[in-house]
Amino acid sequence: MSLVVVGTVAFDAIETPFGKTDKILGGAGTFIGLAAGKLNVETKIVSVVGGDFPKEYLDLLNRNGVETSGIRVIPEGKTFFWAGRYHNDMNTRDTLATELNVLADFDPVLPDSYKDCTFLMLGNLTPQIQKSVIDQLPVKPKLIVMDTMNYWMNTAWDDLLEVIGMVDVLTINDEEARQLSGEYSLMKAARKIIGMGPEFLVIKKGEHGALLFNKESVFFAPALPLEEVFDPTGAGDTFAGGFIGYLAKTGDISFENMKRAIIFGSAMASFTVEKFGTEGLQAMQNGDLSDRIRLFSDLVQFDIDLD
Amino acid sequence: MSLVVVGTVAFDAIETPFGKTDKILGGAGTFIGLAAGKLNVETKIVSVVGGDFPKEYLDLLNRNGVETSGIRVIPEGKTFFWAGRYHNDMNTRDTLATELNVLADFDPVLPDSYKDCTFLMLGNLTPQIQKSVIDQLPVKPKLIVMDTMNYWMNTAWDDLLEVIGMVDVLTINDEEARQLSGEYSLMKAARKIIGMGPEFLVIKKGEHGALLFNKESVFFAPALPLEEVFDPTGAGDTFAGGFIGYLAKTGDISFENMKRAIIFGSAMASFTVEKFGTEGLQAMQNGDLSDRIRLFSDLVQFDIDLD
Repeated sequence: MSLVVVGTVAFDAIETPFGKTDKILGGAGTFIGLAAGKLNVETKIVSVVGGDFPKEYLDLLNRNGVETSGIRVIPEGKTFFWAGRYHNDMNTRDTLATELNVLADFDPVLPDSYKDCTFLMLGNLTPQIQKSVIDQLPVKPKLIVMDTMNYWMNTAWDDLLEVIGMVDVLTINDEEARQLSGEYSLMKAARKIIGMGPEFLVIKKGEHGALLFNKESVFFAPALPLEEVFDPTGAGDTFAGGFIGYLAKTGDISFENMKRAIIFGSAMASFTVEKFGTEGLQAMQNGDLSDRIRLFSDLVQFDIDLD
Repeated sequence: MSLVVVGTVAFDAIETPFGKTDKILGGAGTFIGLAAGKLNVETKIVSVVGGDFPKEYLDLLNRNGVETSGIRVIPEGKTFFWAGRYHNDMNTRDTLATELNVLADFDPVLPDSYKDCTFLMLGNLTPQIQKSVIDQLPVKPKLIVMDTMNYWMNTAWDDLLEVIGMVDVLTINDEEARQLSGEYSLMKAARKIIGMGPEFLVIKKGEHGALLFNKESVFFAPALPLEEVFDPTGAGDTFAGGFIGYLAKTGDISFENMKRAIIFGSAMASFTVEKFGTEGLQAMQNGDLSDRIRLFSDLVQFDIDLD
């Protein structure tokens, strides 16, 4: 099945306690696309970059199974740029620079070859942009997954709720789930958010794992305890890409299969955080992924005989 | 197998966003003892209280299978008292009062009937007191589990390390593991702490679950996502009591069985946080526990066929 990803393709400059980078390849669309491409899913990305975006980065995406004809290049513009510095705990960071550049006027136009997609991943962008992509599809895809963030809750509440009402799966973090629902208990928050439209909710808790909800059930996957988290940038997007990539690959959107998709997403995210930017994902081999999924199984598996 | 628990038996006064209590039954020894007693383990508690401690609380412990002849009553003294107020997120709290009272001069003396215990649980107390209990046992028990906190890392480092070197299992929270080891990565922290003596380490992460380590393996158990956390007081001690209680009940201290013990401890803690003080544990029936353990199994169980 084919997957269309809408999301930023960008330059990141990252500082962590372990080192710093110059401008490297980043952006939600990049991580989502690479993660899905790594699972051999036919993945097509919609985004915008400036004339300063190196052709080698487009080649890199193509080489990893990501179609880039939907990435508009604006020769006279500059690519979206984000710079950040992580604190020692790696859980908090300061944004040092955000230059929207060509992203400021991003008005995504889906190539015709994208319009029959069966899976759609809406990376974190303004709700209006997310909606305009849905509106361009002549037939509703089998599954629409949407990522968003607290910023849009503060600045575009009505638009955000409208798009949330149009999607099948919403992925947000725990604080965002609390803000969106006004409930501290994640169980209560999930019930309210599912009442807003999505059949499924994924609550991402970073190093503390992820929860999957539908109306009746809840599933929890831990994050793998790692020797070292080197650079968390892109972990959430890699998770989302692995999640929807696994669903698109298997074509099965049952709750049971979404549990597997959560594990695949978590496993792929564990590669991203081990190196700067996309390096971890790029270096990942298929065998590596299976090994890591076995680690997940070992990590949580227990056997209690209840009389 | 018999279990001896050393820990505080106290009065707590608790405020949460849901209500407040007068002085009610609290203390680490109380929660640990009740949790183990609930599992029908022969449980004996060592502690100290003042003349103000109601006989009905001792009766309550006895009724729940906890032997209290090792609780010294000092008629002219007052019972240890703690008062605290939880913030809206229930993860942070302010201490409003700490009155050590009879605890200030606590010098535990094990009754002879306690000295053949096979399992020993050292609740959070000064390391000297924990050591003095170990020293009173003529034969080393099959398993010694020790709880402690950051306060002793700041004020009694050498004593603390000495006791840690004498126990089989250490239980601490994630921040304490980081402080004790000087490592941010919990994988690295666990390796260092196991190098200090204990064969097993349990890292408690509150609402984010718990990790069990030995030299080779790691196991993770989530906390049950609850509709409402009403009062977190005693959750960690209930967890510890369920953990060592299950081990004492089964007599099996293998890593595989410790995984089950972690699940039992987590399930019991989920009852504690649903009501004030010990009310949740008191109300718990055996069937309730099995039901909740099934919820744990459903929560984390997944099935991936890796080719």
